[in-house]
Amino acid sequence: MQYPEPVAKLIDSFTKLPGIGIKTATRLAFFVIDMPEEDVTGFAQSLISAKRDLTFCSICGNLTENDPCNICTDTNRDQQTVLVVEEVKDLMAIENAGEYHGLYHVLHGVLSPIAGKGPDDINIDALVTRLQKNEAIEEVIVATNANAEGEATAMYLSRLLKPAGIKVSRLATGLSVGSDIDYADEITLIKAVEGRTEL
Amino acid sequence: MQYPEPVAKLIDSFTKLPGIGIKTATRLAFFVIDMPEEDVTGFAQSLISAKRDLTFCSICGNLTENDPCNICTDTNRDQQTVLVVEEVKDLMAIENAGEYHGLYHVLHGVLSPIAGKGPDDINIDALVTRLQKNEAIEEVIVATNANAEGEATAMYLSRLLKPAGIKVSRLATGLSVGSDIDYADEITLIKAVEGRTEL
Repeated sequence: MQYPEPVAKLIDSFTKLPGIGIKTATRLAFFVIDMPEEDVTGFAQSLISAKRDLTFCSICGNLTENDPCNICTDTNRDQQTVLVVEEVKDLMAIENAGEYHGLYHVLHGVLSPIAGKGPDDINIDALVTRLQKNEAIEEVIVATNANAEGEATAMYLSRLLKPAGIKVSRLATGLSVGSDIDYADEITLIKAVEGRTEL
Repeated sequence: MQYPEPVAKLIDSFTKLPGIGIKTATRLAFFVIDMPEEDVTGFAQSLISAKRDLTFCSICGNLTENDPCNICTDTNRDQQTVLVVEEVKDLMAIENAGEYHGLYHVLHGVLSPIAGKGPDDINIDALVTRLQKNEAIEEVIVATNANAEGEATAMYLSRLLKPAGIKVSRLATGLSVGSDIDYADEITLIKAVEGRTEL
């Protein structure tokens, strides 16, 4: 016996989401069936709206309701620095930290030979065009994740952009603030020693 | 800085689901934004449809598109036995096992003094009315979960229905099929010894 079709379809929709298997999808579907009708309608509308009302900024690749995005059009921001991130949520994390006031560029991915992702599969061309057009930009800070793919992407960008006279830097690697040395992994410790700063 | 409103609303919708925190909700929201438009529309429609097109069977409490449900109206089923479950998904689990061919009754909950749930808060009245109206029913099998609340509910139903001359039984407790004795918990082992069957 199968669930009635509307339940089966809803379970099927939930299983399409990452990290949600059939058991969790069933639990979520029954939760939705018990939710107040206006909450379910709101949920449905928020799905549609997220798809319909959002676009990627044609300059930096940020997710936005207006193109270009609020960051690219904000003339109060430092126009000389572009911080390159893998995903929009990385941009948000740095924005929420509140200390960086320059521009951004979202790659929407990272170089990964294993996953078959080369320079043409991520938003690098737009970055190059942007740097050629806009001579005000002096520094590119590469803020890709501190893993193998992130490092490789940073190296690639550095080799690509440095010949054009642009300063390319990378986020520091080292101990997380508040962390214990004896809990840190070995590679982090090595990087922290290498990148030591004078007091 | 905040996410654009459509993203923020979608994240908010996901966090209303059980077991989904802000980090997972954000990950799901970005996944949805990258999904093909027809998949997102389908997801939204399945949410609306699950709420709009489903009702609970007025006889047994099962989730159904037509009232009464297909099980209650199926005259080929054994009309003498009613199996009582806590939730619709328990009914589905037993139905999918394929060996039970009687009727069902869904309580939509379980007696739980800690959660303030008494007999009036779950679908017990409808069961009593049903047994009074339908003299064909001879046995009630209580298939609530094998935990404290499930046991208490089974005891309550037994005391309520037995005086009316109805046979009330409970699912067997014991070892799961395929399980190792040295991995079973102590209470399960005690129950398995108590409920031993002659070979």
